[in-house]
Amino acid sequence: MRIDIITCQPGLVDGFLSQSIVKRAIDNKHVEINLHDIKEQGKGKYRQIDDYPFGGGAGMVLMIEPISNIIKILQAERKYDEVIYLTPDGTTLKQGLVNTLSLKQNLILICGHYKGIDERIREKYVTLEISIGDYVLSGGEIAAAVLTDALVRLIPGVLNDETSALTDSFQDNLLAPPVYSRPAEFEGMKVPDVLLSGNEKLINDWRLEKSIERTEKRRPDLLKK
Amino acid sequence: MRIDIITCQPGLVDGFLSQSIVKRAIDNKHVEINLHDIKEQGKGKYRQIDDYPFGGGAGMVLMIEPISNIIKILQAERKYDEVIYLTPDGTTLKQGLVNTLSLKQNLILICGHYKGIDERIREKYVTLEISIGDYVLSGGEIAAAVLTDALVRLIPGVLNDETSALTDSFQDNLLAPPVYSRPAEFEGMKVPDVLLSGNEKLINDWRLEKSIERTEKRRPDLLKK
Repeated sequence: MRIDIITCQPGLVDGFLSQSIVKRAIDNKHVEINLHDIKEQGKGKYRQIDDYPFGGGAGMVLMIEPISNIIKILQAERKYDEVIYLTPDGTTLKQGLVNTLSLKQNLILICGHYKGIDERIREKYVTLEISIGDYVLSGGEIAAAVLTDALVRLIPGVLNDETSALTDSFQDNLLAPPVYSRPAEFEGMKVPDVLLSGNEKLINDWRLEKSIERTEKRRPDLLKK
Repeated sequence: MRIDIITCQPGLVDGFLSQSIVKRAIDNKHVEINLHDIKEQGKGKYRQIDDYPFGGGAGMVLMIEPISNIIKILQAERKYDEVIYLTPDGTTLKQGLVNTLSLKQNLILICGHYKGIDERIREKYVTLEISIGDYVLSGGEIAAAVLTDALVRLIPGVLNDETSALTDSFQDNLLAPPVYSRPAEFEGMKVPDVLLSGNEKLINDWRLEKSIERTEKRRPDLLKK
């Protein structure tokens, strides 16, 4: 998979790429991630990338030309499966959409900032608009990091244990069961006996029961799907 | 506001704190953010912080003692309004919850990693469990970055223009209207005439209409609230 991230704050994404699972996936060539700084296509001596919104009002708008230039350069080099804009008014990201996108080859992610990008970029280039949740962030960079992390960990070989992602919350519409590790007793709090029993069937039954119990209590909406 | 983030991957959060709006808020003393590396409380010569789950299965569990030690140290120093665990089975984060939390003084954020934290930490210390969305990340660090960014930008004085956050998506259960900036025409695509009219009333009416239209089309669920 190749992910091209268009941003005016590459430093916000950069630290995240040099850490943890995403870094390992890059090192092991499971994914190639390129950051494209909008400022490199900024206009004039000061490399301007934002301007006041037409019609007035608070906040700046990312201008159409610098972003358009970057997209044109990328699309001339290869075919992209999706040009994704991270925006609070996009389709709400769910694990199912992450699963679907994890099968794609080439993705462009556009990070908004300030009041967002010029609407005409959305009309002309964007094929998919994604919101990571019903809240507002100062920019799309962290949203792009969320999507990238969620995607990258699904690429086969990225997680050490291939079964690990399959037992996560949401993959079967159930929340994950509680987990415990040593010591078996800590300040009077004990691990449930069944987990120490060594009886695999009992343990699996208990985990499924707890998953269902937790989902019924916290997220009954997931069970209806 | 003071935010203490407990993590085994401080580097994942670090880059984000040194950039953009959060950095400016820290520099201007609007918020104090401290990272606490779980490894500093790791056990033994190798500073162990994770162990196999009781009952077997894929993935490692963050052990109870290192995290418990950090929380005890922090809680001995000051009173915390909430001890928040970022987890996919928590309450789904919405702007309303962000607004509420932005009024708090002291918050602890615990980032899970691998299969999560020992359940007993949740039982003993955690007062609020938050999920940033129905998808799985490789760790709670990016989720903590999301929550921190959403919170920090609401602190008065952090955004340049105080009205800026109030016109965001979700603050009034409406998605934001489209925004445009110069040039007024780009490769045949024109900015709507009304935005160039200079008539403030017409512009405000158009924006409200577009907000409602976009919300009806994309997120009718928001209008029912």
